[in-house]
Amino acid sequence: MALIVQKFGGSSVADAERVMNVARIVTDTYRDGNDVVVVVSAQGDTTDDLINKAFEINEKPSKRELDMLMTSGEQISISLLAMAIHKLGCPAVSLLGWQAGFNTSSAYGQARIKSIKADRLRSEIDRHNIVIVAGFQGLNKYDDLTTLGRGGSDTSAVAIAAALRADRCQIFTDVEGVFTADPRKVDNAKKLKEITYDEMLELATLGAQVLNNRSVEMAKKYNVEIEVLSSLKRVPGTVVKEVAKMEKMLVRGVTKDTDVARISVTKIPNTPGVAFKMFSVLAKHKINVDIILQSVGRDQTKDITFTVSKGNAEEAVNCVKSSFDIDDGDIICDTNVAKISIVGAGMESHPGTASKMFEALYERDINIEMIATSEIKISVLIDLEAADRAVSAIHKAFFPAE
Amino acid sequence: MALIVQKFGGSSVADAERVMNVARIVTDTYRDGNDVVVVVSAQGDTTDDLINKAFEINEKPSKRELDMLMTSGEQISISLLAMAIHKLGCPAVSLLGWQAGFNTSSAYGQARIKSIKADRLRSEIDRHNIVIVAGFQGLNKYDDLTTLGRGGSDTSAVAIAAALRADRCQIFTDVEGVFTADPRKVDNAKKLKEITYDEMLELATLGAQVLNNRSVEMAKKYNVEIEVLSSLKRVPGTVVKEVAKMEKMLVRGVTKDTDVARISVTKIPNTPGVAFKMFSVLAKHKINVDIILQSVGRDQTKDITFTVSKGNAEEAVNCVKSSFDIDDGDIICDTNVAKISIVGAGMESHPGTASKMFEALYERDINIEMIATSEIKISVLIDLEAADRAVSAIHKAFFPAE
Repeated sequence: MALIVQKFGGSSVADAERVMNVARIVTDTYRDGNDVVVVVSAQGDTTDDLINKAFEINEKPSKRELDMLMTSGEQISISLLAMAIHKLGCPAVSLLGWQAGFNTSSAYGQARIKSIKADRLRSEIDRHNIVIVAGFQGLNKYDDLTTLGRGGSDTSAVAIAAALRADRCQIFTDVEGVFTADPRKVDNAKKLKEITYDEMLELATLGAQVLNNRSVEMAKKYNVEIEVLSSLKRVPGTVVKEVAKMEKMLVRGVTKDTDVARISVTKIPNTPGVAFKMFSVLAKHKINVDIILQSVGRDQTKDITFTVSKGNAEEAVNCVKSSFDIDDGDIICDTNVAKISIVGAGMESHPGTASKMFEALYERDINIEMIATSEIKISVLIDLEAADRAVSAIHKAFFPAE
Repeated sequence: MALIVQKFGGSSVADAERVMNVARIVTDTYRDGNDVVVVVSAQGDTTDDLINKAFEINEKPSKRELDMLMTSGEQISISLLAMAIHKLGCPAVSLLGWQAGFNTSSAYGQARIKSIKADRLRSEIDRHNIVIVAGFQGLNKYDDLTTLGRGGSDTSAVAIAAALRADRCQIFTDVEGVFTADPRKVDNAKKLKEITYDEMLELATLGAQVLNNRSVEMAKKYNVEIEVLSSLKRVPGTVVKEVAKMEKMLVRGVTKDTDVARISVTKIPNTPGVAFKMFSVLAKHKINVDIILQSVGRDQTKDITFTVSKGNAEEAVNCVKSSFDIDDGDIICDTNVAKISIVGAGMESHPGTASKMFEALYERDINIEMIATSEIKISVLIDLEAADRAVSAIHKAFFPAE
């Protein structure tokens, strides 16, 4: 007998039929002799519908009232799921975030979980109830409802698993797990049995939208074992844990991120502190810079190239222009680029990994514009048009067809 | 400066435009220098939509989970109204039933208010906020959400007015106030300026669906002055209070109730205790009996006739049959009847009132089947087909066109 936390996203409970499907997964787990806590998001488009209702009335709604509005979404889905579980003959009780003891910071719309007072959760489990908790929400010190911001329900589930020292936290999605590349685009993409927290964090950052980063960070901190799996197909998913079996794989996955803009600044005076100044200005404007490349230019000048997300590109260009005396022609912004990365904890001890990646690109005649490396990943910036070909080529090099 | 509680029903906040209309009424009251607490119901059809969602999943949903589901409706309307009031430039904060301190009994779906811990309400008023409270809901001793049952939002408003000793509780509806008869059906129906609690209770019981009885009873108990008025037309409504000015009116109103069935039992042995037995059997089955008439029949037997609501008619017949040895032909159920009543605290000291009513019916050739009287009302049972004609005739007799 184990204590299992299961999380289902909005599309998994979008209508009555899907709610019944989730109820079957939950009751099967319960009937196998486990204690089960379920975390659910709002049904399908509910959140968007509620936001539209708000904006129809006030284009700048108060964040407190927006949270009051939004949290009604999960209230609907938890009660419906409880009714569905009752229908299948198992005991269940639904709890709002505050009833489940979620104390959060005061920041409406992006509150952080401060603590979970798990008494009610524990007493409901002791009564052999399946406990259904509204994800994405909590209560702040003013006794007001808050939402946790993006990916909040994943975080709710991991936080409950940590508070209850659950044996596993299962995150159900519309994919079967974490793959070596996007299975919709790359033939022969393989599902990983296991992956480490750090690898998962790199993959998430790099555009593999399976798990929210905040939830993985929390899982790592409290050593919560996560399983990512499908709510539609009953097969084992991918387990995220501290030490993953290597499965003889050097590389865990190949990812593509197209939300990238490259900004090149040329003819900068070659004096100390210029790079420092430039990036502190960007930091002040809360612009995250990813890859940075500096090279010596001609005539006592240097060039600095860096990448930001597309949404920040224009502001970044303006920042740099207003802080330095730069001609329009000497700053170039290119949004026609993609970042391709390989991730794997094993690669740091295998020196041939980078050259194998570069060789795969060379063979397809794909030019590398920038390179960045960390202990467990290698990223390259290439032409946007070549992105999908590049992922396929690299994936083939590291995961040859059996 | 006064403290005013304003209550708006579901149709008053059905869409963005109507929410803005309510916001204008509320902010006008606030800008006149008053403290304002607003109680709102769920938007338009929300409650029905939620019930349908529940029944799609489980045709016998748990009452606790149904309350969890239903209370999301008011959560949506209170936050939207707060946003609308902000849009008009006034400070406002929305509170759920439990945040407003509503402690209720445990009976899900029909909880009773046990107390209101008004600290939060008071502190928000002290901060000069317009406070918007979710009607119809509270929290029981298990920290679970409850709903108050039919007409619950009216009761919420009166309870808040009582707890805060508000100067007035305004109940906004789609009618302009309490009329001497249904203004859609009777020409020359007059709006009453004032009416007593007891008169209002009789009118409500008799089918004038303006105010829920429970809320009037509570208003009477705590001496809360209620005003019933229109949310669409800005004119004074009807004030319900302990002592109303007589306005030279003997009768306050004429009402029609068509949810009536008449059951006649004949050839009952003329022995003591028969009537007692019959009505105690009906009471055990929680069937409310309204008018009772007993007459001596032939051959040492008697007849008993009584009225119940149409929904209880079949069960009442079965009850009586199973408890007494009665032939099928000796029990008759007639659902083709209507109860017409006149209500007014002044009538008890005016002996001519009943005969004036009966005369109006006689002149239209309408036969009276049963008569019942109390201190402030006279009711007659007549043929359903003649109901509207009867109301017009009686109304004309007591309120002649000027």
